Amino acid sequence: MLAEIITIGDEILIGQIVDTNSAYISKELNKIGVQVYQITSIQDDKEHILKALELAENNADLIIITGGLGPTKDDITKSTICEFFNDTLVENKKVLAHIYRIFSQYIDSDPLPSNLLQAMVPSKATVLQNKHGTAPGMWLEKNKTVFVSMPGVPYEMKYLMQDEVLPRVIKKFNRPHIYHKTLLTYGMGESEVANRLEDWENALPKDIKLAYLPSLGKVRLRLSSKGVNEKLLKEAVDDEMNTLEELLKDIAIGYEDETSIEQRIGEILVKKGQSMSLAESCTGGGIAQKITENAGASAYFKGGIVPYETALKTAILGVDDQLIAVNNVVSIPVSEAMALQAKKLFKSDYAIATTGIAGPTIGDGDDEVGTVCIAIATPTGVVSQKFSFGKARERVIAKAINKALEMLLKEILKN
Amino acid sequence: MLAEIITIGDEILIGQIVDTNSAYISKELNKIGVQVYQITSIQDDKEHILKALELAENNADLIIITGGLGPTKDDITKSTICEFFNDTLVENKKVLAHIYRIFSQYIDSDPLPSNLLQAMVPSKATVLQNKHGTAPGMWLEKNKTVFVSMPGVPYEMKYLMQDEVLPRVIKKFNRPHIYHKTLLTYGMGESEVANRLEDWENALPKDIKLAYLPSLGKVRLRLSSKGVNEKLLKEAVDDEMNTLEELLKDIAIGYEDETSIEQRIGEILVKKGQSMSLAESCTGGGIAQKITENAGASAYFKGGIVPYETALKTAILGVDDQLIAVNNVVSIPVSEAMALQAKKLFKSDYAIATTGIAGPTIGDGDDEVGTVCIAIATPTGVVSQKFSFGKARERVIAKAINKALEMLLKEILKN
Repeated sequence: MLAEIITIGDEILIGQIVDTNSAYISKELNKIGVQVYQITSIQDDKEHILKALELAENNADLIIITGGLGPTKDDITKSTICEFFNDTLVENKKVLAHIYRIFSQYIDSDPLPSNLLQAMVPSKATVLQNKHGTAPGMWLEKNKTVFVSMPGVPYEMKYLMQDEVLPRVIKKFNRPHIYHKTLLTYGMGESEVANRLEDWENALPKDIKLAYLPSLGKVRLRLSSKGVNEKLLKEAVDDEMNTLEELLKDIAIGYEDETSIEQRIGEILVKKGQSMSLAESCTGGGIAQKITENAGASAYFKGGIVPYETALKTAILGVDDQLIAVNNVVSIPVSEAMALQAKKLFKSDYAIATTGIAGPTIGDGDDEVGTVCIAIATPTGVVSQKFSFGKARERVIAKAINKALEMLLKEILKN
Repeated sequence: MLAEIITIGDEILIGQIVDTNSAYISKELNKIGVQVYQITSIQDDKEHILKALELAENNADLIIITGGLGPTKDDITKSTICEFFNDTLVENKKVLAHIYRIFSQYIDSDPLPSNLLQAMVPSKATVLQNKHGTAPGMWLEKNKTVFVSMPGVPYEMKYLMQDEVLPRVIKKFNRPHIYHKTLLTYGMGESEVANRLEDWENALPKDIKLAYLPSLGKVRLRLSSKGVNEKLLKEAVDDEMNTLEELLKDIAIGYEDETSIEQRIGEILVKKGQSMSLAESCTGGGIAQKITENAGASAYFKGGIVPYETALKTAILGVDDQLIAVNNVVSIPVSEAMALQAKKLFKSDYAIATTGIAGPTIGDGDDEVGTVCIAIATPTGVVSQKFSFGKARERVIAKAINKALEMLLKEILKN
C-alpha cells in the first residue's frame, strides 16, 4: 500500500521553517510496511489544497495531512477538508470538554471563542484526541482511501501518530513488510565504493534495492526489500548485507538503521561501565549537544567544556600556555593536551578535544580556515589527527563533529 | 512568477534524511521575488520523475530539481530528464576537465569510469559549473518554462544556487517584489494574540497577508505582500508592522526576517563590547552550539561548560556542594550559583545557566521530569526562573534553550 504526505503552510514554501514532520511520518510509516509515494508541501490556499487532495487520492491509499489546524484565520485546512468531503462542521462534545480542561490546567484563563471553534469537526470524521493541544486530529474515509489530518506542531503530531494514527493504520490495512538495513562507512568516496561493489551490485536479486547516501565524509549504503514473508525478506537482505560488510570491512563501522554514531558510543560505554567528556573549541558545543540529545546520556557523559577563547584553554582547562605559544592553538600538541586535561578534569575514561578555525562562511583569504585538530584521550593514551575541512563554516563544524565521534568510536571499539 | 521545487531521493521518502534543501531554495527564491507554489519530494523512479515534471510544468515557470545526480546506479535523474526533453547525452569537455582537476587536487587518485560519466549532459542543457563537486548543474528550457537540475548535496547545491542559478533567474524573469516582515513575540498563546489583533486583522488591506507561526513558547507574526512597486510595498507592510508592534508591545521582542535570537544577542554584545559565557546542564551544549553557529561568535562568546554530572557542578564550576545538598540540583539557588560561577570563571559580562531534568522521551512517573531552572548572571546581579516544560525530552531541551536565550536578550536590552 502507498501513502502520501501533504504538509500545508506558507511558512514551508517561503523557507521560514524546515519541514521535519514529513521525515518523522515517513519513518514511522515505513516501519509498519507502508511505503510513502510522495511528500507534497503546499500553500494555505483552498484551491491548492483541494487540488493536492484530488491528486493524492489517485496515488495513495492513505493520505496524511499536517498543518493549518490552528485557531487563527490563516488556518483553512479544516474547512477545506469539509468541502472536499462535501460535509458540514459539527461540534464535538468530547473535544470541547478537552479544550476547557487544557485551558484550566495549563493556561489559567478561559478559552476564547476561536479556541472553542477547534471543537468543530466534519460530521463524517472520526476524532483523534490530541492530548497535547487543542486541535483534534481527524480520520476520514472516502471509498477505500483514508485521509488523516493532524496539527503541524511537531510534538502534537508525534503523539497523535503514536497513539492514534499508527494503531488504526495497522488495523485497517494489509501491509507488506518493508525491511531496510543501512551500513555506515567512513573514509572512502561514493564512486570508489561503487566501483568496488560493481560485480556484487550487478548480481543483486531484483527485489533488493541498493542506495548510496553520501554525506560529509561518510557513505551510507542502504539495502531495502519488501514482501509478504517477513522472515524470508530479512534473511535475504541480511545475507546480502553480510557480503556487503565483508566487501567493505576496512571502511564499515556499523549499521545505521536506528542507531546514530553517538547512540552507539553511548551503548558501548554503558556496557563497559565507562564514561566520556569533551573539550570542544571549534565544534562549540555541537558534540555535547549530539551526545545529550539521547536519553540516558547522564550514565556515561560526565560533561564538557567549550573553551572558546584561547586564554580559557589555559585558565580553565589547564593547558600549558607555553605549549599554545610554541605550537599555535590549532595544533596536534594542543589538541592532545586539551583531551588529556578534559579526561583528568572530568574524571572520565575517554575525552574528545577539538581545536580549529571554523572560519567565516566564505573564505577570507586565510589559508588556515578549515584546519581542525581532533584528539581522543583513552584509558591508555591519546591519539590525534589534523584535518582540512574546506572553507564553509557550517561544513567545517559538521565535519569536525562527525570525525570526532568516528575517532572516539574507533578507540572505544579498540580498547 | 511561480516556482516548484522537486527533490528526488528514496532517502527522503523513508524518512532517513530531512529535506533541508527545499527550505534553503525557497528562502533564496523568495528574496528575489519568486513565489514557490509547491515542494514535491519523489522517489528515484523514472515514471514518478516524469509525472512530477509534467505536473510541475503546468504549475510553474521555474522548476528546480535536486538529487539523483550521483555517480551510482540508483541516480537516474539525468537520464530521465534527458527522456523528458527528448534529448541525448553528450560529453562536456569543460566538465570532464573539471572532474580530472578535482580528483588530482582533492582525492589523489584517478577518476573512475563512473566519475567520468558525470561529464555526460543532455545536449540541450546549459551546464552550470559545480565548483564543489563532480556532478554539474543543468539549465534547460522548454517553451517558456525553465528546468534546473542540481545535485542534492547541500553545500554543492548552495554554491550552485548563489553562483549560477539565482543570477540567471534574475536575468531571465520579470519578477514582482515579495516583501515579508516577521515579528517575534514571546509568552502569549496564538489564540490570545489573535484575539487581541482581531479588529486590526479584519481591517488589513487585502494584499497584505498575516500568518501566525506558533512554536515552543513563541508566536511569530508574518506580514507579506507582493507587487511591482517595491517602495510602496515596503511602506504599506512597514506601516502595518508599526501598528502591530504597538498592539503587541508587551510581548514583541523584535523582527525575525533574517536574524535569529542568538544573532541578535551577538550583535548587541559586539556593539556594547560585552561578552557572555554558559553553564549548561540540561541543555547539554545546545545553547553553545546555537551561539557558535554564527561566524564571529568568538568576539563575544568566551566559552561554556557542560557540567552534566552533578559532582562536576562543584568540582569544576565551583558551586557549593552544600547548596546543592540543601536545595536539590534542580533549583533556583543552584541555577543562580552556576550562572555567577560561570560569569566569574569565564570572566564574562553575562552568563546563562541551565539545570533541569530533560527526562526520557516518555514520562516515567517522576513528576519532576520537565522541570528546568534558568538563571542569567548580568553585570549587576542575577535573575532566574523555574519552568515546567512537559515530559518529552526533545521538547524540554528545545524549550529551555529558547527560554534561556530569550531571558538573556531581555537582560542585555535592559542593561
